[in-house]
Amino acid sequence: MRVPSHIGIIPDGNRRWAVNKGLSKENGYESGIDPGLLLFKLCQREGVQEITYYGFTADNTKRPMEQRKAFTKACINAVRILSKEDAELLVVGNTKSPMFPIELLPYTTRKVFGKGGIKVNFLVNYSWKWDIDHLKTSKSRSNNIIQQIESYDVSRVDLIIRWGGRRRLSGFLPVQSIYSDFYVVEEYWPDFKPGHFYDALSWYNDQDITLGG
Amino acid sequence: MRVPSHIGIIPDGNRRWAVNKGLSKENGYESGIDPGLLLFKLCQREGVQEITYYGFTADNTKRPMEQRKAFTKACINAVRILSKEDAELLVVGNTKSPMFPIELLPYTTRKVFGKGGIKVNFLVNYSWKWDIDHLKTSKSRSNNIIQQIESYDVSRVDLIIRWGGRRRLSGFLPVQSIYSDFYVVEEYWPDFKPGHFYDALSWYNDQDITLGG
Repeated sequence: MRVPSHIGIIPDGNRRWAVNKGLSKENGYESGIDPGLLLFKLCQREGVQEITYYGFTADNTKRPMEQRKAFTKACINAVRILSKEDAELLVVGNTKSPMFPIELLPYTTRKVFGKGGIKVNFLVNYSWKWDIDHLKTSKSRSNNIIQQIESYDVSRVDLIIRWGGRRRLSGFLPVQSIYSDFYVVEEYWPDFKPGHFYDALSWYNDQDITLGG
Repeated sequence: MRVPSHIGIIPDGNRRWAVNKGLSKENGYESGIDPGLLLFKLCQREGVQEITYYGFTADNTKRPMEQRKAFTKACINAVRILSKEDAELLVVGNTKSPMFPIELLPYTTRKVFGKGGIKVNFLVNYSWKWDIDHLKTSKSRSNNIIQQIESYDVSRVDLIIRWGGRRRLSGFLPVQSIYSDFYVVEEYWPDFKPGHFYDALSWYNDQDITLGG
């Protein structure tokens, strides 16, 4: 089986999950933390080399304050939990905005925890505009455009898995996603099951990868 | 019914279609021209305001010469055929490369044919790198990033329809596709049927459009 080197995770549907349970929307995010840890462990077991979680975007911070607080807290907790694993963590997002949680500032350069190994990136207060606007001022002489954007330490994504049924990228790493295969799970993220991940890997294994050729 | 203003078309599967018919790969492209005209007429009828066809990319030109000649010829013919309709045509691509067909140079600024109305864009010798690299030198003072890239006269895409079963963007307008909904038709492009288009519109009508909010 051909395992993708880098998997992007769009953990959508937390609010719809909460509403379906009779909860208010902001109560959906906490239930997304355990799935994130479980998915991390499955990736580790299968030999995936890098994972990027779509935490929250600058657009998302325009939502009601209760929601903003809840998803920010969930991201902080997710990073803290994964820092107890063997992983190389990086948080990528606009730290110059007050919406960036100061608790995550220490993670904005990649840090090795435990024995390291798998790279795990969290997009936190991320914005696709902010990311590619860096092209205007980059001093990199690399011919690789990834080296010239804010998310330069995040590699090309092979497979993107989105939960919650929507078939769109919603600003997720536009440069690294150029050639990504895109797999959609209908269930909401808090209802994550290992089968979703293995179905996505199995589907990816059947794709003919051409990188635009 | 909520009709998308701008539809992106990825007409993939021409080569697989040809091989399935016992033809050589380069013979698949000519059979993609009639579907393009039919789809244009359906968009016109339904009130779509803009269509972008993914013609060929700079990556694609690395394929064997017979294929390159065949898809280039098909693009030239498609533009000529649509110039006999009521449409406002634009060809977007890197004209500084010898792979750009000189026959299409007159179309690289938008031109009105017949009564005009619907905008039709063709990406020809297009490259996502070339497109966004323009950010480095753009003199535009607009806050809208689309104004600062090579494809500045192509608006945000609401719905992308890809034929041929692959679930990836393959470098199609990364900036304009940030929030696009993505619909995949399993059939190959030369087997286009109006039902594919209407199924896509019906699916799009059920999507909750948030533009990242």
